[in-house]
Amino acid sequence: MTVTDTLVEFITAGLPPEPDVLRIVDLCLLDWASVTCAGKDEPVSQLVRNRAMAEGGTAEAQVCGASQRLPARTSAMVNGVTSHALDYDDTHFASLGHPSVTVIPAVVALADRTGASMAEVKQAVLTGAEVAIRLGVWLGRDHYRTGFHVTGTAGTFGAVAGAAHLLQLTKAQTRMALGVAASLAGGVKAQFGTMAKPMHAGLAAAAGVDAVLWAQAGLVAAEDGLDAPQGYAATHHAMRNNNAFDGLGRHSVLPEISHKFHACCHGTHAMLEALGALRDAHGLTLENVSTVKITVHPQYLDICNIPEPGTGLEAKFSYRHLAAMMLGGVATERLESFGDATQTDPDLSAFRARVSVRTDTALGETYARVEIERRGGGHLIGEHDLSAPMTLAEREARILVKSAALIGASRSRELWSDITSFTLDPATPPGAVLLAI
Amino acid sequence: MTVTDTLVEFITAGLPPEPDVLRIVDLCLLDWASVTCAGKDEPVSQLVRNRAMAEGGTAEAQVCGASQRLPARTSAMVNGVTSHALDYDDTHFASLGHPSVTVIPAVVALADRTGASMAEVKQAVLTGAEVAIRLGVWLGRDHYRTGFHVTGTAGTFGAVAGAAHLLQLTKAQTRMALGVAASLAGGVKAQFGTMAKPMHAGLAAAAGVDAVLWAQAGLVAAEDGLDAPQGYAATHHAMRNNNAFDGLGRHSVLPEISHKFHACCHGTHAMLEALGALRDAHGLTLENVSTVKITVHPQYLDICNIPEPGTGLEAKFSYRHLAAMMLGGVATERLESFGDATQTDPDLSAFRARVSVRTDTALGETYARVEIERRGGGHLIGEHDLSAPMTLAEREARILVKSAALIGASRSRELWSDITSFTLDPATPPGAVLLAI
Repeated sequence: MTVTDTLVEFITAGLPPEPDVLRIVDLCLLDWASVTCAGKDEPVSQLVRNRAMAEGGTAEAQVCGASQRLPARTSAMVNGVTSHALDYDDTHFASLGHPSVTVIPAVVALADRTGASMAEVKQAVLTGAEVAIRLGVWLGRDHYRTGFHVTGTAGTFGAVAGAAHLLQLTKAQTRMALGVAASLAGGVKAQFGTMAKPMHAGLAAAAGVDAVLWAQAGLVAAEDGLDAPQGYAATHHAMRNNNAFDGLGRHSVLPEISHKFHACCHGTHAMLEALGALRDAHGLTLENVSTVKITVHPQYLDICNIPEPGTGLEAKFSYRHLAAMMLGGVATERLESFGDATQTDPDLSAFRARVSVRTDTALGETYARVEIERRGGGHLIGEHDLSAPMTLAEREARILVKSAALIGASRSRELWSDITSFTLDPATPPGAVLLAI
Repeated sequence: MTVTDTLVEFITAGLPPEPDVLRIVDLCLLDWASVTCAGKDEPVSQLVRNRAMAEGGTAEAQVCGASQRLPARTSAMVNGVTSHALDYDDTHFASLGHPSVTVIPAVVALADRTGASMAEVKQAVLTGAEVAIRLGVWLGRDHYRTGFHVTGTAGTFGAVAGAAHLLQLTKAQTRMALGVAASLAGGVKAQFGTMAKPMHAGLAAAAGVDAVLWAQAGLVAAEDGLDAPQGYAATHHAMRNNNAFDGLGRHSVLPEISHKFHACCHGTHAMLEALGALRDAHGLTLENVSTVKITVHPQYLDICNIPEPGTGLEAKFSYRHLAAMMLGGVATERLESFGDATQTDPDLSAFRARVSVRTDTALGETYARVEIERRGGGHLIGEHDLSAPMTLAEREARILVKSAALIGASRSRELWSDITSFTLDPATPPGAVLLAI
């Protein structure tokens, strides 16, 4: 069995409908719709959407923030960009990719086009996310370290997989769609910090739509675009970690996904979680804490250790300032908490001097340890690993808080009800449910 | 100066309007329009065009074979695919890419959209082709041998360059367009022999249009997507041959381009030229030739040495059969000469036994030697190098013959007159001139 054989079998069969796994899909949909709607006025979202609306075309699918429905490809492009614009979407740390922002826009766009139901969307999203994640692991750390952005690369194959499952492509068509994806999947990390990073999500989603619609129409592409001698793996520094496919089709890796609960760099989240737990358990405040010592894996030091942030954006990448925000009781799940006033708050700024950061290569990439000296004596130690399992109930509660912070409590409740409802009007396009704003 | 700096300077300035170089551009336009119109009914052209027409959108640009004008991006995609569908377009052997099929569709689509003139199209095509060719050389043989299809990769940057020059982007915008292209430029050689190969041309052309229109609207991408530590060169096995840019902006490398004059594999053309010259000089026929010995560089042996072709397509890749066609006076510039009847002609098939092929690693990749034994005695030797310079007059005469064979003598004359006319109605969109069928 080639890698393509393995994927074709899986994509056409899909996964058994385990309720716990499908509930994760529900949460991914709620989270994705919330960050998308909240990201619609970001400059890159407006830029890509305005151009798409000027191009126009057949009214097939919902586009977040647009006054008109647009072709499925265009919808996938705009919604993909918009959902990654805030960098507040989910991450799968083993694959180093963001699965939802490539797979969901492609699946939803095609569901709108063909009239598929929300139930079918969920199965297709699950199939696509499995492929996006497992292919990211298959491509491996060499692929990422050389400079490929896994969201754009593995994400394209994930979008193809989700779209192919939704349209029920034949095995031969699915193979051709995966084959041509070897010419569509790109994105380099030189774009990090620019608008082109979120565009990778849109490009991957649009490529997924293109690939499956061409395949459905009779496209002939490479039989094994992924792993042929001059195919994707050979050209894109793939490690070919074949254990990435262990259990494929029998159990899902989607529940390993990590949702962001703070509107800042993911590299700071383990610290925030550890500190937040101590704060809540011991009633910590800016006043009753003397010093905070943070220990993390060294890979984050270049990214999120700005000692004296000068803007709200810089505050998102500052361990010291974020520690102050957490102990100061600021709602870190809210975008507004990172306005440009955040770093000038005198109490928060003053507290930064009491926070120190150090590294330990023995710590995992998703792990942080915090040590607190309390005023008047007393030592507290906390730790958190973002990769540790989280109960469904806790995950649901936290995503609902985040969603409400992003789109308002009432719209959030309505959205969650629509996503999970068994009575959802089957005539309503899924895109209209998810992206109504 | 980074590579991007160098290109930004060049693209915004362009080349001096040397008449001989612009006449090569005229010939590239005639050749491109002819192979495009002739390729419009190929399955891949129909597939991509039908999908584009179903998507629809704002009427901006001509699409070969479509009943409606479509958005510029879509026009570039369809025309790019269609122009490469027959594999009868021009090649630049030093870069190993096909420049016209990526650059011209992007430039023409945007010219139609903005109302630019044919004169402006020519300057933009020249600028784009320079970049496509020189970047192919810069990426180098490692890039190609690892498995990248230079037409899709360097061709995307060429399409960006042509489109940016046409729209007169600022230097900052040009930089952003080149930057995002590092996430758009793809295409692997695993697709050779499938529909996805010509699709690389369309994808590159469409990416060129996307990149410049986004840049014009304010896109922020990597400052140096090409050569940043995690940019295009680092991820795509580039050799960074900086001498590729010697003389950039002062002299053009476009005149080195090789046009195809036979509707078969480019690897057989040097042999056909050498044999055709001997035939014409010495009145050779199938009857008065006893044996033919062909010597070529070994890299072509896997590709175009099918000894007993069973179909017209296989005949295109058969030194032995093509030698018989040339001596038999068959018009090898005509597509019809490669119908499925070609390989069953008894005289041609019988002659194949008299042709032998051998290799010599000392020969250049674009070189062939032929040795003829005449019936009744007499020995002739001929040779040809596709890279040898050709006079403008000879090139023009041969492209006119090819064009007439593809689209009819009358349409071809009219097209050539329109391309070269100084009196062309400036209100006529260039696409309508080039792609009227």
